Amino acid sequence: MPALALTLGDPAGIGPDITLAAWQRREADCLPAFFVSGDAGTLSRRAARLGLDIPVRICAPEEAAGLFPKALPVVATGIEATAGPGRPDASSGPAARVAIEHAVSLVQAGRASAVVTNPIAKSVMYEAGFSFPGHTEYLAHLCGEPAPMPVMMLWSPLLAVVPATIHIPLAEVPRRLTSELLVATTRITARDLKERFGIPAPRIVLCGVNPHAGENGTIGREDEEIVRPAVAMLRAEGIDARGPAPADTLFHPAARQGYDVVIGAYHDQVLAPIKALAFDSAVNVTLGLPFVRTSPDHGTAFDLAGTGRASPSSLIEALRLARRLAVTDAARRNAA
Amino acid sequence: MPALALTLGDPAGIGPDITLAAWQRREADCLPAFFVSGDAGTLSRRAARLGLDIPVRICAPEEAAGLFPKALPVVATGIEATAGPGRPDASSGPAARVAIEHAVSLVQAGRASAVVTNPIAKSVMYEAGFSFPGHTEYLAHLCGEPAPMPVMMLWSPLLAVVPATIHIPLAEVPRRLTSELLVATTRITARDLKERFGIPAPRIVLCGVNPHAGENGTIGREDEEIVRPAVAMLRAEGIDARGPAPADTLFHPAARQGYDVVIGAYHDQVLAPIKALAFDSAVNVTLGLPFVRTSPDHGTAFDLAGTGRASPSSLIEALRLARRLAVTDAARRNAA
Repeated sequence: MPALALTLGDPAGIGPDITLAAWQRREADCLPAFFVSGDAGTLSRRAARLGLDIPVRICAPEEAAGLFPKALPVVATGIEATAGPGRPDASSGPAARVAIEHAVSLVQAGRASAVVTNPIAKSVMYEAGFSFPGHTEYLAHLCGEPAPMPVMMLWSPLLAVVPATIHIPLAEVPRRLTSELLVATTRITARDLKERFGIPAPRIVLCGVNPHAGENGTIGREDEEIVRPAVAMLRAEGIDARGPAPADTLFHPAARQGYDVVIGAYHDQVLAPIKALAFDSAVNVTLGLPFVRTSPDHGTAFDLAGTGRASPSSLIEALRLARRLAVTDAARRNAA
Repeated sequence: MPALALTLGDPAGIGPDITLAAWQRREADCLPAFFVSGDAGTLSRRAARLGLDIPVRICAPEEAAGLFPKALPVVATGIEATAGPGRPDASSGPAARVAIEHAVSLVQAGRASAVVTNPIAKSVMYEAGFSFPGHTEYLAHLCGEPAPMPVMMLWSPLLAVVPATIHIPLAEVPRRLTSELLVATTRITARDLKERFGIPAPRIVLCGVNPHAGENGTIGREDEEIVRPAVAMLRAEGIDARGPAPADTLFHPAARQGYDVVIGAYHDQVLAPIKALAFDSAVNVTLGLPFVRTSPDHGTAFDLAGTGRASPSSLIEALRLARRLAVTDAARRNAA
């Protein structure tokens, strides 16, 4: 199986730091082989600044797995990044963007087994003419027309959650959350849990919108009018969906035994519990794309770049999960 | 110090079961002395049904502490309850209600040190002519005019949270949440944390309404227009309030070291995380009343009544916390 493609992320962020730190722990943590899609110079300079003796080697994707034990393999994009840690410059946005495009083209050509992305900063990307709401939407766009609907999952060994609406004001949730959105989101989630996580019949719980899932319609109507019909439609398709379930009694250890994933109505409802339980090990996974994509669940943390204080934990979990999903997906394709 | 007054709760619910189970663990768990405010017959019959040899003794509140090691003390209300486990009848609502009134009058007369309430069922109470939204509002009403503003806190050894709005539809949160409500709620919380929890300068975090606390107004305006002004008013009064803080990064272990309580904008935002972290040990505490009141954080569970399967964990934590708060409050009053 080819190596994983890890994008450089914003060159001025902690992407280079945690990439170097993860590579250092490749043996101790039994990490899958990866190469960096991006600028080798940024990695060499960051290593020098951090006092790390890490050989950075430019190579072809096919050479990465062989090189990985001895050097950090880089598949060069040809775009040099000049920014120092914490100080993005005009080269940062284009360098981050081309690293993503390059990684996607390699995974689509079968030259990488999955894409793992280091964090980018929206403000920096926008200055470089980027016009997508975020990383995920850009990845979907790069898949070509018709663009797939990407679904964000936060995964940890303890709990997996999918917010059906994400970065919108709370006041807009009741209007933007529809049965159709819940059905589409849950279908994609069910398919990826089956095909890539290897769960034959995923058990999926849909959160209620209102406190206590609306107590049968006495606290708001959304649970009866939006969530319950969505669950019925999904069950009619043979998907093991349940709900609307009260969010407050859904995340304790006994309750977590009863499902494989929770579909939340909105951001804080499911992200607050998973980050309470698994802050360092949570990984962002994009479902619904034609390839596997994971990323650490944090941002560029410009203030930590180059300090040696950025933790590679989430990136390490993202690399591990990407490998696991790619292996399961490949086995299924081979069997089919 | 007088014993704690524990209300019977709904006679057909698990209140009698967990009361008996808690009394049995009085020595092993070093429980503070309590008496039951309610019907002794219900407790004797439930003990017999569960095969428990527990002496139930009717007494005056002042005798309870002395009796407690040898028998379960009951301060009789004079209202007999006839319901069997799981089957509330016409006597259930009045019996539960009078038990609450009795306990409140005893704590107000200094004959009980605090009130701990067993669960009641709203539907049963409404049939008996009860017209309050819940237990808490009824307790506030019993305090006389002007009724105090009660504030619900969920407390556990790991985390304490206060939802500023509770059982209302999500769609109404942005309209019902005001700076005035946040200020009033936080003031009461700060005072009780100081006077009853013994925290000299409570550190209080107010959650943002929107994802990422609105990202400086780019995801909804509520965080800038409602939460931020409330924090400023509170700080001007000398209260150590912070926020608006993103809810999703507020509940992991390192973050929890930074505050004593979180004020949430709405129900699921703070109740989902605390129940994820501390499902069995969370206790409901009513702040803002002239006396200490705690209760277990669960309902009547009619299906478990009389089965021996109801866990007394939350009631035991509620009894312990009530004692601790009553002792701290009394010490402060004596010092003043």
